[in-house]
Amino acid sequence: MTKSLSVEEKFELIKRNTEEIIGESELKKLLKEKKQPVVYLGTAVTGRPHIGYFVWALKLADFLRAGFKVKILLADLHGALDNTPWPVLDKRYDYYKKVIPLMFESLGVDTKDLEFVKGSDFQLKPEYMYDLLQASTFTSVHDALRAASEVVKNAEIERARVSSLIYPLMQVIDEQYLGADIQYAGVDQRKIMVLAREVLPKLGYSARIEVMTPMIQGLQGSKSKMSASVESSKIDLLDDYETIKKKLQNAECVEGNTNNGIMAFLKHVIMVIKHDKKEKFTVERDKKYGGDLHYRGYGDIEKDFVHKKLHPQDLKMAVAKEINNLLKPMQKERVKLEKSSKEAYK
Amino acid sequence: MTKSLSVEEKFELIKRNTEEIIGESELKKLLKEKKQPVVYLGTAVTGRPHIGYFVWALKLADFLRAGFKVKILLADLHGALDNTPWPVLDKRYDYYKKVIPLMFESLGVDTKDLEFVKGSDFQLKPEYMYDLLQASTFTSVHDALRAASEVVKNAEIERARVSSLIYPLMQVIDEQYLGADIQYAGVDQRKIMVLAREVLPKLGYSARIEVMTPMIQGLQGSKSKMSASVESSKIDLLDDYETIKKKLQNAECVEGNTNNGIMAFLKHVIMVIKHDKKEKFTVERDKKYGGDLHYRGYGDIEKDFVHKKLHPQDLKMAVAKEINNLLKPMQKERVKLEKSSKEAYK
Repeated sequence: MTKSLSVEEKFELIKRNTEEIIGESELKKLLKEKKQPVVYLGTAVTGRPHIGYFVWALKLADFLRAGFKVKILLADLHGALDNTPWPVLDKRYDYYKKVIPLMFESLGVDTKDLEFVKGSDFQLKPEYMYDLLQASTFTSVHDALRAASEVVKNAEIERARVSSLIYPLMQVIDEQYLGADIQYAGVDQRKIMVLAREVLPKLGYSARIEVMTPMIQGLQGSKSKMSASVESSKIDLLDDYETIKKKLQNAECVEGNTNNGIMAFLKHVIMVIKHDKKEKFTVERDKKYGGDLHYRGYGDIEKDFVHKKLHPQDLKMAVAKEINNLLKPMQKERVKLEKSSKEAYK
Repeated sequence: MTKSLSVEEKFELIKRNTEEIIGESELKKLLKEKKQPVVYLGTAVTGRPHIGYFVWALKLADFLRAGFKVKILLADLHGALDNTPWPVLDKRYDYYKKVIPLMFESLGVDTKDLEFVKGSDFQLKPEYMYDLLQASTFTSVHDALRAASEVVKNAEIERARVSSLIYPLMQVIDEQYLGADIQYAGVDQRKIMVLAREVLPKLGYSARIEVMTPMIQGLQGSKSKMSASVESSKIDLLDDYETIKKKLQNAECVEGNTNNGIMAFLKHVIMVIKHDKKEKFTVERDKKYGGDLHYRGYGDIEKDFVHKKLHPQDLKMAVAKEINNLLKPMQKERVKLEKSSKEAYK
């Protein structure tokens, strides 16, 4: 598939569903000039991965289709800097390392150009640390805290720990040490990405292209993002069908109001997959309520939902089925994964 | 000499002229139990070394006499974290490495147990950096800033850079990685030392003994310490006799008032040396003004000065002569040192 895409097609593929790209013209130039550019996404080893992670897995799939080398940084040290207790850090890393590849299996993505990198494998090297110290002299406490504010817990000046300031600086340096042309992340990382654009050139390195996708809401509360630390707001990658159904049952989803986590997941994950697979999204419904509904695109679902032609209850059950399908690879490995998960999150 | 000192004598030798010791009983135990304990003093590679450095050189001489292994950390990375520009860092290190050993030559100290360690030779190692990151998770921004406040430039929250917070944490870790039983420093380092006592045990290391000597005032202003960054407040290790005389001539020293940098240097350096060498301190004076004065101890000088029996002008010239004697080894190497100094401080 890669070879058949034009530069313009690659650009559109990368850009779709993004919220912002810093350096769009640089991206076009990169696609024109470099045979296999490198993109990296970092995920700090903290809470248990949840279905919100499919947003970035899908975008990384786009990068793979566009011919990129894709690196997923399993950022163990960043996890510790953001409150993961040091004694369980390696166990959590192991769990991430086991469960995240299954997301790509679930998406049916060709992963020959996907690489997993462990943070501590390169972030403790002398040249990395030298650059970190350099970066620390070019960055005010104020700017580092601001960069960390949407990412790190307790990033207010009164409660912050020194680790909260080192966290964004390491993420800045990572762009260089992973040999990345692009850093891709959720838009909550925006301030760190902006910091990276400022700081890397001061170290004599080039500023990287920054690509961001939107955050999706959790299942509870219309404003907060899906979060690993709020159990009821998220569906865990290990949740079984019964649990998924129960969580969706309890999820906020007011008839006619699309501002909720279920619609967000539909839009940013399920319907993207359906679109790529050229499949329809089906809502099963008893004949007496009008029978099954079939949708080609998110727009149509939204329209029906707003006009109350699609009831939250029916939607929830249809989404539960799709999520359950997505998590089949995890269910297949359930015993192994639960053992690993128990050691990581006691 | 070492072998003839009792534990009590060693203790008294280490304690003399100190302002504070954290862990006195631990120190007594150490002297009793360890054949050759290790003490370290760190000096960040920043401004040009001045005669105030003789205060700690003398105390390190005490440690050597008490049978210690003495390590002087020439802290190049700390220098950069405290505003030394990265491009001249190595040149400044070279200058420190050349000039500081001459202070010990000047004092006539046996240096077989004195070792110079370059910070970046061990502070960039993975295990060190891992511990630094660990320490950063155990230390609030607030506590790190407070620790740095008397040591690092611009350590106010509004202006501080991230490097200002990393600085004290590295000093904490240094105690462990230098294998030190004791950290010795000027009392301006007190808050970092207290932080070290708190943080090292959280990393599974033992808290070290902390020994502090007082700060001595500069030649200008009765309250500020002698500082490398205020030229008129200090006498540089490369100053020649004419320059020394001129600076002392201009130094604050009001008749009858002992609160000035000249009296402080007399007390903490010159008269300590005189005492150890069993020599007298001589103030040359014309016969018509009463002729030469000879002092065995600082107390007598102070008494005469307070009672205006010793005039500032006469005292200044006597002190100038002593300082010039102290700096003879530097004058002998002057050409080489000035070349190095010019490269380090352009």
